[in-house]
Amino acid sequence: MKYSIFGESHGPAIGVVLEGVPAGLELDLDAVRLDLSRRAPGKSALSTARKEADEPRILSGMFEGRTTGAPLCAVMENTDARSGDYSRTRDLARPGHADYTAHVRYGGFNDYRGGGHFSGRLTAPLVFAGGVAKQVLAQRGVTVGAHISAVYGVSDDALEDWESLCACAAKDFPVLNDEKGAEMQAAILDAKNDQDSVGGSIECGVFGLPPGLGAPDFGQNAEGIFSQYLFAVPAVKAVAFGAGVAFALMRGSEANDPLYVDGDGSVKGEQNCAGGINGGITNGMPLVFEVTMRPTPSIARQQFTVDMAKHENAVLELTGRHDPCVVHRAVPVIEAAAALAACELMGI
Amino acid sequence: MKYSIFGESHGPAIGVVLEGVPAGLELDLDAVRLDLSRRAPGKSALSTARKEADEPRILSGMFEGRTTGAPLCAVMENTDARSGDYSRTRDLARPGHADYTAHVRYGGFNDYRGGGHFSGRLTAPLVFAGGVAKQVLAQRGVTVGAHISAVYGVSDDALEDWESLCACAAKDFPVLNDEKGAEMQAAILDAKNDQDSVGGSIECGVFGLPPGLGAPDFGQNAEGIFSQYLFAVPAVKAVAFGAGVAFALMRGSEANDPLYVDGDGSVKGEQNCAGGINGGITNGMPLVFEVTMRPTPSIARQQFTVDMAKHENAVLELTGRHDPCVVHRAVPVIEAAAALAACELMGI
Amino acid sequence: MKYSIFGESHGPAIGVVLEGVPAGLELDLDAVRLDLSRRAPGKSALSTARKEADEPRILSGMFEGRTTGAPLCAVMENTDARSGDYSRTRDLARPGHADYTAHVRYGGFNDYRGGGHFSGRLTAPLVFAGGVAKQVLAQRGVTVGAHISAVYGVSDDALEDWESLCACAAKDFPVLNDEKGAEMQAAILDAKNDQDSVGGSIECGVFGLPPGLGAPDFGQNAEGIFSQYLFAVPAVKAVAFGAGVAFALMRGSEANDPLYVDGDGSVKGEQNCAGGINGGITNGMPLVFEVTMRPTPSIARQQFTVDMAKHENAVLELTGRHDPCVVHRAVPVIEAAAALAACELMGI
Amino acid sequence: MKYSIFGESHGPAIGVVLEGVPAGLELDLDAVRLDLSRRAPGKSALSTARKEADEPRILSGMFEGRTTGAPLCAVMENTDARSGDYSRTRDLARPGHADYTAHVRYGGFNDYRGGGHFSGRLTAPLVFAGGVAKQVLAQRGVTVGAHISAVYGVSDDALEDWESLCACAAKDFPVLNDEKGAEMQAAILDAKNDQDSVGGSIECGVFGLPPGLGAPDFGQNAEGIFSQYLFAVPAVKAVAFGAGVAFALMRGSEANDPLYVDGDGSVKGEQNCAGGINGGITNGMPLVFEVTMRPTPSIARQQFTVDMAKHENAVLELTGRHDPCVVHRAVPVIEAAAALAACELMGI
Repeated sequence: MKYSIFGESHGPAIGVVLEGVPAGLELDLDAVRLDLSRRAPGKSALSTARKEADEPRILSGMFEGRTTGAPLCAVMENTDARSGDYSRTRDLARPGHADYTAHVRYGGFNDYRGGGHFSGRLTAPLVFAGGVAKQVLAQRGVTVGAHISAVYGVSDDALEDWESLCACAAKDFPVLNDEKGAEMQAAILDAKNDQDSVGGSIECGVFGLPPGLGAPDFGQNAEGIFSQYLFAVPAVKAVAFGAGVAFALMRGSEANDPLYVDGDGSVKGEQNCAGGINGGITNGMPLVFEVTMRPTPSIARQQFTVDMAKHENAVLELTGRHDPCVVHRAVPVIEAAAALAACELMGI
Repeated sequence: MKYSIFGESHGPAIGVVLEGVPAGLELDLDAVRLDLSRRAPGKSALSTARKEADEPRILSGMFEGRTTGAPLCAVMENTDARSGDYSRTRDLARPGHADYTAHVRYGGFNDYRGGGHFSGRLTAPLVFAGGVAKQVLAQRGVTVGAHISAVYGVSDDALEDWESLCACAAKDFPVLNDEKGAEMQAAILDAKNDQDSVGGSIECGVFGLPPGLGAPDFGQNAEGIFSQYLFAVPAVKAVAFGAGVAFALMRGSEANDPLYVDGDGSVKGEQNCAGGINGGITNGMPLVFEVTMRPTPSIARQQFTVDMAKHENAVLELTGRHDPCVVHRAVPVIEAAAALAACELMGI
Repeated sequence: MKYSIFGESHGPAIGVVLEGVPAGLELDLDAVRLDLSRRAPGKSALSTARKEADEPRILSGMFEGRTTGAPLCAVMENTDARSGDYSRTRDLARPGHADYTAHVRYGGFNDYRGGGHFSGRLTAPLVFAGGVAKQVLAQRGVTVGAHISAVYGVSDDALEDWESLCACAAKDFPVLNDEKGAEMQAAILDAKNDQDSVGGSIECGVFGLPPGLGAPDFGQNAEGIFSQYLFAVPAVKAVAFGAGVAFALMRGSEANDPLYVDGDGSVKGEQNCAGGINGGITNGMPLVFEVTMRPTPSIARQQFTVDMAKHENAVLELTGRHDPCVVHRAVPVIEAAAALAACELMGI
Repeated sequence: MKYSIFGESHGPAIGVVLEGVPAGLELDLDAVRLDLSRRAPGKSALSTARKEADEPRILSGMFEGRTTGAPLCAVMENTDARSGDYSRTRDLARPGHADYTAHVRYGGFNDYRGGGHFSGRLTAPLVFAGGVAKQVLAQRGVTVGAHISAVYGVSDDALEDWESLCACAAKDFPVLNDEKGAEMQAAILDAKNDQDSVGGSIECGVFGLPPGLGAPDFGQNAEGIFSQYLFAVPAVKAVAFGAGVAFALMRGSEANDPLYVDGDGSVKGEQNCAGGINGGITNGMPLVFEVTMRPTPSIARQQFTVDMAKHENAVLELTGRHDPCVVHRAVPVIEAAAALAACELMGI
């Protein structure tokens, strides 16, 4: 399966083409819509006020309720675009955003409105594609789930198992420990009140993968495959598997997962520091990783920047609708990226 | 440029084929040898005692001292292989290592001796390939350098500039602050005395990349491209760009790099939290990232594991030659991976 | 540039996503529409009676009349679909068509109506993508043109130059020699009267490519790159460069193109048997190739086949609207595939 | 499986890295050597007098007689290189050869001796890789064979079945009809006496492929996949599947293969004009194609060309050892390319 996302924040529509979907899948569109609504803005003070139906229109690859095996294209119209918000500051590169780099890369011809193709809005088609991938995986006994592991230094409980994640997915604010969740939300609202934003992290698990997927070599190792999908999600700046950055604080005797033969005859680890991967190959334990997401760059505070038209220093004061934090909305996005990566790893 | 590494730790030879090397490069083999010697074991109590000449024999792609543009193949013979060390424990999967996953993946046919194709020894051809890539980059004004940023919780100073890294590369133990370096080495020797090993991290910078390289989309973003190369290095478990995992502790007003027009007319950031990348595209600032490396899994301590032949629980006591830490030897390896990634990003 | 075509003959819509379009191109949509109308059916007795507007709606990648550099998606609605035509014979595999192979490949879940994703209708988005590619090439001085070289054994004159092709493109029946064209049309109408169809061939030239593009190696040679695009066009069964299959009748002294230094200092061939490519690399002469297209498999004659549902022998009598020949409609399709291939070869 | 060939005609060695070989294959090296000897020169007046042992040294990917699943590298030393033959004419581009295009592509830094990386000698590692692929296919019931279908206008009998090809493979001059073979050899010797060379064609069949492999889309269709491998063979200028270029002479009623249910329940065609492929997907019939190979460009006759150093017209008179025809030596090469393509198609 291979996805190709198109669209711009304030263009006519956004969408995705998904090649290689196995034929005959009875696609549960309501399940996909649920993931889309988990990502959707406009639900609370924690997110931007932009409201989009995000109703996917499927143009191809479905026939009589099932996938045909041909490329599947889904399109979502942009209905709540307000281009006017952006014209005043079009030449002022928002610090931390891709305005300047896009300007250089595309010679100033990129659609700057609302971040254009760089907008977080483009994660809606990714969630659609991931929703399809999840259903493909489910047929093979593989499930994917994620929770907010931290926001602005407030940490959620450690991930234990798939069941705890299931319960978590239904929540408006997907954390394992709701008290920690409340603290995180307070941090987000504080930042919002300060015309600021906050970063955080998401921990994700893929459960049920068989051992023996991947290879050590370039382009084939499990970590490399997952990271490719994860870094394609806007705002992700770090990807860490298993114990992740904590490996730098550990000794081998702590980091090595002792192995044993389980009751069902399978080989398991007594712990899962490796995050389900050794030597780039899955070991049958849950594949677990954490991504770090930078704070939303669009903040209302005065910021120093450059005017790209005049090529001189400038001061930026943004108006418009912005997310004080994207981490909670990004949970189904990371799940989507993980589901697509898991499909590649399984050779689907 | 595309590399393909082959070889096993105790097979006849290891090597690499590098496709797409620009023609006409007067390859400085001594510079490559220097990187290989930075990686080489056997130099001190901090590394395994295995001694290898690592002298590359170039089979193709060079003519009259210059690259021809045809695939460049370099081979290094394995001369200090001691297969006998491994036969006693061949069926006991070393915890934390790829023994079990390779056994599943390759049906038990993998060359188990010394980790086979999973061995850290395979990083020698990677350093060779990276050495060529560095010279290709140097012609275009791009340089690459790295230092040990932490070992077992002891942190080096923060990276400042290319000059400080240059000085660092010549050191036996490549840190910016030698006092910190001495502490790290003590931590490694402590672990060794305890029949244990330690993990750490390496920070790397690519200097001189022009702005506008990369794209936001899957497979084209700068972070994704770099991570693909970095996770192909054995033992790397986390990759973080710029402020990395610290973004989860930050507000937008801290994380956004204010922009200004520099004296030479170029646009610069007042800080570099983004690590030189916005929206998957380079911004002209140094491309900076940190990788975390897990502690060497091969330790002499008694460990619980499984016997893969008998499919039952077992106790492992390793003998043989092992690295108590691979971080210091991995510095030129990470530079190599970064150089190859930078070539891809530049379309070389 | 990379294209991804989606859609089925009788689904809601067909379309294409084109990644990597250079930013800032002022897309001439009328020129694209002209190519689409050259491909369109319904214009004469030589083609199927199905009528489609084939008006592309651009969903992304365009802003203020220019390409943005982000993926460009164009969609065309299916308006003249008549699914009823197909239900009666849905289980009878049309000989020569992909009905049986699609049934096996997609487990019977493929959209069988009108050939589904295998329909020649899917060449409309390819012509759109090729139309964009042609304009990208034109900016770099590269042009593409094609003519019908043969239909059912009647051959057109040999291709001479770009000017003769230009004149040809405007014709309803694109041949260099209209008398030969009249013979071809008679052969097509004869076949139609006999409830049959005919095959033919198209010769295509790419003019203005600089020498030195491509490489001899797998995946990089000019012939391999072009053939990949050409065999993705339905009905193409042979691809031949330069003298093509006639090389099997030649001696080296005939086949070798003598070289000389032209007045402008460029190196040219006195003839172009090589079709502009030596050793997988362009030589600066026109890149010339010929594709052979099989006769349309859908014919009204009684044919022996299998019933895929009952898994038994059957007799098929097709009704519905079919092309007695697709060669004349395929001319802009082959140009499109060539234009996309030329972009890849030029590293666009 | 992915191959990467390296080496130059007069460099130290040539070889290949083959990634993705299934683990556990007990490689029959004698069978590979047999294919290499079928390709080897120096056996008769029909080929160049250069003598090479072509004994592969396997550097990796084999352990205890079986493949390990890690990349397999095989190297063959160049022992009969005579660089002196080439120095006199190094600046004179041989018409029909890649001398001029390589000079432009690689800025004059390519190894010009004996064609360097463009030499037919580079097909030896390809035959090695194909030999491995054949054994991988044989385990899955798939076999590959080829014969000379024509030389300088003399045609062999039409291909009937796998058994006739088997008998053919053992012959010094691999044709089905030895009388035709004698005529072809006479044509080759005639050309040689005239200081000239001849072209020809090879027909190849892949037997035992299941139906349902491939897809219609770009990069996934069976014809496109095969053509990519075939055009990577030096001198191949045309690739045609099934009835090939004869489709341009046919009506649909002739070209459509009527289907029937065979005694074993499988669906078969009464003829095989499609060459085993419909809509880019295998149909279970033998996959059959023909490649056309241009006459060897290196001929001893006086030829007009350019001096690349002086950039002026020149006259070339070649000496040295050359093949008056490469078609007979290329039979195992085409089989090798087909075997590798079949592996990709089968997802190996």
